[in-house]
Parts: sequence; C-alpha cells; structure tokens
Amino acid sequence: MKPVKIGILGLGTVGGGTVNVLKRNAKEIARRAGREIIVTRALARNLDRERICDTDGIALTADPFDIINDPEIEVVLELIGGETLAKDLVLQAIEKGKHVVTANKALIALHGNEIFRKASEKGVMVLFEAAVAGGIPIIKAIREGLSGNQIEWLAGIINGTGNFILTEMRDKGRDFGDVLAEAQALGYAEANPIFDVEGIDAAHKLTILASIAFGIPLQFDKIFTEGISKITREDVEYAEQLGYRIKHLGIARKTEKGIELRVHPTLIPERRLIANVDGVMNAVLVKGDAVGPTLYYGAGAGAEATASAVVADVVDVVRALTSDPENRVPHLAFQPEAIVDIPVLSDEDFRTAYYLRLTVEDKPGVLADITHILADHNISIEAMIQKEPHEGEAVLPIIMLTQLTLEKEMNAAISEIEALSTVTGKVCRIRLESLK
Amino acid sequence: MKPVKIGILGLGTVGGGTVNVLKRNAKEIARRAGREIIVTRALARNLDRERICDTDGIALTADPFDIINDPEIEVVLELIGGETLAKDLVLQAIEKGKHVVTANKALIALHGNEIFRKASEKGVMVLFEAAVAGGIPIIKAIREGLSGNQIEWLAGIINGTGNFILTEMRDKGRDFGDVLAEAQALGYAEANPIFDVEGIDAAHKLTILASIAFGIPLQFDKIFTEGISKITREDVEYAEQLGYRIKHLGIARKTEKGIELRVHPTLIPERRLIANVDGVMNAVLVKGDAVGPTLYYGAGAGAEATASAVVADVVDVVRALTSDPENRVPHLAFQPEAIVDIPVLSDEDFRTAYYLRLTVEDKPGVLADITHILADHNISIEAMIQKEPHEGEAVLPIIMLTQLTLEKEMNAAISEIEALSTVTGKVCRIRLESLK
Repeated sequence: MKPVKIGILGLGTVGGGTVNVLKRNAKEIARRAGREIIVTRALARNLDRERICDTDGIALTADPFDIINDPEIEVVLELIGGETLAKDLVLQAIEKGKHVVTANKALIALHGNEIFRKASEKGVMVLFEAAVAGGIPIIKAIREGLSGNQIEWLAGIINGTGNFILTEMRDKGRDFGDVLAEAQALGYAEANPIFDVEGIDAAHKLTILASIAFGIPLQFDKIFTEGISKITREDVEYAEQLGYRIKHLGIARKTEKGIELRVHPTLIPERRLIANVDGVMNAVLVKGDAVGPTLYYGAGAGAEATASAVVADVVDVVRALTSDPENRVPHLAFQPEAIVDIPVLSDEDFRTAYYLRLTVEDKPGVLADITHILADHNISIEAMIQKEPHEGEAVLPIIMLTQLTLEKEMNAAISEIEALSTVTGKVCRIRLESLK
Repeated sequence: MKPVKIGILGLGTVGGGTVNVLKRNAKEIARRAGREIIVTRALARNLDRERICDTDGIALTADPFDIINDPEIEVVLELIGGETLAKDLVLQAIEKGKHVVTANKALIALHGNEIFRKASEKGVMVLFEAAVAGGIPIIKAIREGLSGNQIEWLAGIINGTGNFILTEMRDKGRDFGDVLAEAQALGYAEANPIFDVEGIDAAHKLTILASIAFGIPLQFDKIFTEGISKITREDVEYAEQLGYRIKHLGIARKTEKGIELRVHPTLIPERRLIANVDGVMNAVLVKGDAVGPTLYYGAGAGAEATASAVVADVVDVVRALTSDPENRVPHLAFQPEAIVDIPVLSDEDFRTAYYLRLTVEDKPGVLADITHILADHNISIEAMIQKEPHEGEAVLPIIMLTQLTLEKEMNAAISEIEALSTVTGKVCRIRLESLK
C-alpha cells in the first residue's frame, strides 16, 4: 500500500523528536501500522535554524498553508503550541479534511469542544494523547482500557517540573526558590515558571482527564488551582515525620453532589506507589469501580517521550484509515450526544483531610482554644506534633492532621483560629488524600 | 441504534463478574460504546448453581451451540478457561462469524497463532486484554499506546499469588510453605499451585507480551521458567540487607543476538517503583526506545478487575462494529505479514547479574578459591556479605552480588565452586536485574 504522507506544524523540541522517532523506527512502525509513514512537509518559522532532527526528504516551509493545502497530506501534526495560531491552523486543517494529531494541552483544554464539533462535521480524527503526561498512554487507558468502569476518581502527578522541585526539597532539604532556579537552569522550567509551579499546566491536563473519565464537557475555567510556591521545606519535613509525602496533584472525583476538579499540593501516605514517583516523572492513579486502583507511570515531557505519544496517535489514524474513516473511539471517550453536564463543585464543597501548621504562643490553654474551634466545626484531629519552642523564642509550631471534612468548615475554623490572639500569622494548610 | 447482543461461555468468577459490571454500568458503557450492550445467553454447566451475578433476562443453557448458532449474537465471550473445549468453541464461534473476547491466557499463548489466522480469514475480531495482568490495559498500552517505539525490554509481576507469597515472606519473615498454605486457604492459589508458583501462568502471559512487544510469533515452549518454591526467607532477608527485593518477574528483552524470554525470581533495587508493588497486585514495566521506562499497575485477578478488561474489549468491538468490521488493530500489534521469527535465546546466552548464596567451611583460603573461580569466568563481584558461623557450627553463609555476566559462565563457575571440598551443598543463585 502507498505510504501515508504527513505534515508537521512546528519543528522545535516535540516536532524534531517526532521526526527522529518516525525516521529511526520507520520499519517497526510500518510493521505495526500496515503502511509506511513519511513526513513530506514541515513548518518552521526560521528555515535556517539548527535542528535536533535530520530534515532530509522533508520540504521545509514558513507558510502553514503549504501543508494544509497539500492534497497528498492526510495527517497534520500540530506541534507549535500556544493557543491562537494553533487553534486557527487546526480548524483550517480539519476544514480541508485532514486528520489532526496534537500535543497541545492548552488548545484541547480551552478549545477542544469547538475543535471536536468541527472534526465530527468533517468526519476526521483529532487525537491528542501527547497532551497529557507525555509518553504515558493515559488517554487511551481511560478512553478505551477502562471503558467498562465508572471512574470514581483520578489523581495525577502531571507536571514534571513541580514534581522535580518537591522531590529535591524532600531529598536534599532545599528551599523552593533555590530548586526552582536550578530547574530553570536545567531547562525543566520555563523562564516564566508560573504555568508549572502555579498549577496552570496541570489544570489544562486535568481538564482533559476529567472530561474523558466522566463524560463531561471540557471546562478549564472551573478547575480550582493552587500552586506549590508556598510549600516550605519544614512542611515537607513534618509531612515526612508523619509518614506522608507532599505531591502536587491534579484530582478529579465524582461525588453525589457533583464533580471535584482541583489542583493543589497534597499530602499522601508514603506507602502509596504514587508517593514514590520522583523527579520529573509523571504518574496518574485512576480508580474504577470494577478494576479498582490502577496506575500509569512514565516520562511526562521531553522530545522523544512526547513524540512516542504523537507517533502512537499517527499509527492509530493510519490503522483506521484503511477501513474506518470515521473516528472509532469518541474524542472524549463518550459519544458526543452522551456528554452530560454534571455540576462541578465549588471548593467550599470539597471533602478532604488537612495538614495544618500553626505558630502559637507558648502559653497554657492555647491548644484547648484551637481544638475547641475545630470541634465546633465537626473537624476531628487524626495526629498532632507539638514542637518545643526554639531557644529564646516565645512561639512554637503545632502540626495537625485532620480527618475528612468539608472545605467550608475548614475555612471557617481557620478564620477563627487566625483571630485568636495566641496564634501568630497565617495557618498553613495543605490538603491530604489517602488515595485508597 | 439496536442493542448489541452478546453471549457468554462460562458463568463462573469472571463470567459472573462480567455480567455484574455490564449490568451495573450499563448506562455508562452505552454512553461510551454508542450502543447498548446486553447479554442474551450464557453457558453454564450446572444450571441450578448459585451465582455471583443476577441472571435476569439471560437465557441459561448447558449447550454452547445455543450461543454459537444464535444469529442475533454478534460477540461471544469465552470465559470457561482451560484449553481443549475453549479452543474448540472459539474456533467454531469464529467460523460462525462471531467476534470473540477471551480472558484465557493459556488459550492465546498456546493456540493464538491458529486462532488469529482463522479470525483473519473470517474477518472477525478476537480480543484478549483480560488474558494478561487482569484489569490493567497492558495489551492496549503496548499494542497501541507505545506503537511508535522499539520495545527494548519489559519486566512484569504478572502472577498475583506468587507476589503475595514473596510479599508475606518479606514483610513477616515467614517461610514459603507456610504462606502458600495461607494463600490456598484465602483462595488466591489453586489447590494445585504449580501454575502459580512454578511460573507457568506467568510464562503464558509473557508469551503474549513478548509477541506484541516485538512482533514475533507466540511461542510458549521457548520460555525459560523457574519458580519461587526454592526461595528461602534468608534469601529475602539478605536481599533486603543489600538494598534489593526479590520479585518473580517475567522478562522479555531484545538483544543483538535474539530475544531473552524468561520467568524467574529476580533481585531488583528497592528504589524501583516496581519493587514496591506488593501483595496480589500486578505491574508491568515496559522500556521503549523513545518513551523510556513506563509502568502499568493494578489488580491482576479477581472477578471485577478481570471483567473490566473483558468489557473494555467488548466496547472496542462495538465501537468498531459501527464502521469497521475488520480488526483495526492487528492481533499481535504488528500486521500478520510483518511478524518475524527473531531467534529466542537459550538460557545459556542470558546476560544478567546474580545473587549467590554459598555455605562454606570456616577455613582460611576458602574465599580466595571461590573468587578465583569467578575471576576465571570473567565474573566480577559487586558486593558481598560474610556472616559469622552460628555458635558451635563449622560452616557459614557467604552472599555475593555479581556484575552482568553470561549465564553459561555462571553455570560453569557454579559447577566448579560446588566441587570445592570446602563448599557445602548447592549454591543458591537468583538472577538480579537493575531495570534501568
């Protein structure tokens, strides 16, 4: 059979990695796909730049329409990133009847609903495995591998930079700012690290995971997001003393009242497998009602790990092309007419446990005042560490773990505790999930 | 659209679990598949037996041909297990143009080549996700999710009973026989535990994983298999002292000379995620050249976990039925004409590191003799523990870890060491893999 011709928009890290993987593994890939796959054209902003890939046989162009209008190209890979231009080009490629593979999480999280509608109209496939957790086939696992389950919840380490920072803080007792500077120097974190450390990147990915897990629309604007920049090395140490690790998790959970969608630092028991996912690695824990807990682990970023997911999507397209021009698997796992708009809960309605760190005066009755406030809000204490004050200091830290409670009760309790004259400064709170 | 009617052969643990999942999650599943899925007939040897599932609306029969010959049934689930009858019925169902979903690892490992040929002739799908690692979608991950990679190796904990035994031996310092008896009492291990503890069950599963990873034929007879029955609690303890855990792994690795296919107890560094997979849980670590290491974890057995994989396969069939009567994804990941017969290495050609435990007389020069023999066979020592002899005993244990070596060199060295007059009894050897 004739080779399948593909065009690539964007020849940076992911685009270059994709060309390398397609060339190096061409034989193996053709054995799986049933047809040879060749890149005939690629968009590159600067045609003279040095690249990580060999571009022999690929016509480079600065005009995306050389690719989108090429009648021989059947699949377009959108690997330029960003939202505005990417969205425009993806919609135009679909309009021209091209199948699209993208690695762009922001694009799918923010504009997926519109893109999928257009793709359905035109009868083309749009695949986006690389948009979440890099090389881990997590979208396929949820959309297809767990399709017999009602997904109860999922929790993922889906930003490698954040996980690298938290791992270094724990392993080496370093401070947040110090490790962030190193991550930037190593190229893990962007010069503007806000997308990584404030959880926006993770929220993009969680938007997609929640949609395919529960059959709800993509709704990035409803995700509660809290970053890791306020985590201190003391918190990391106290958590460790209590048998927990702090991870920056994206959590989606279906409750009777609605769906919790939240990204925040989380204490998790150190014996959980996901607590041991370190450095830049990603992992997603998915709990189905039939299968129980399952975990998917691997590299969440990097040229070739991301390319692995892009190429897998291309192979899926090619396997379907031979006999199935419509997309066999619905974009969001559920049939478009079966997508339902289950309410997304406000953070006030979250049910979770908490780690609390307070600084209090070394006086009798302080602890009684605090526990009294918690009891008034039906908050039970699970464990507590009370430290001796440092030499010559009149204040001391108290660390508490609570049982499950409603976030609004905790908000109220914290306001009252902070108003006590014996409590200094703000209460540090980190949510805690047992992930059982 | 009309519901898809399915028939089930076998209404035991997995069959009953599948009915329960299909009924309980009917709405969720139809939302994903695009059609309702209903079980209309089921084969049960004893029609009066009490069952774990509600059989309302299902016509029970003792005659499999009531199912196979029913023109309304589009998909047949083979969940009776065993080889002879199962093979016969699967081939007849295919002959009648039914799509088949099976959870039967022995059937696929031993007769898959024949079954898939027949399925291709008849243009029907045969899916078998549940045959390996229960609810973990590992077949889909390798066949589709990693299709851009050259798989370098994979290593899996793919027998829950064996992992439960090794976990108990480590956690509680118990003996093999003692834990096995408990596993049998708990229903984890069969009354005849040989399939589990001698690695035959794992070898069936490894046969399938190796085939889809490398595009080679199914060849169960070429798997090297060693069980866990000779592992002592002392070995488990010594391994722990050296920073390792002992796991019963199925390993498939592509080398320049051919493919290693082996099931045996293996020391692995305790910091590896897979070293922390405990109890009856399964996990498979897959190393692709582009993606790097990825891990897939979950329940490897149990009624509903296995049903999760069976139902996912049914959904795959139904999603394809609407537009794609041929199997879009090749059975063994690679196109049938692309399957190549790469040689499978004999165990003499394995390259691995070793844990060795020897019992020696407490005399000068003994260690020198042993290290001399190892050096003669180009075997380097990585670490060693020499214990004091027990009070009143003239012999003492020596534990060594070696670097990578060829198995034939190790076989020769062990023969020579066992021939030393100062060495008592057999040398205990367990292979060691760094899984990097």
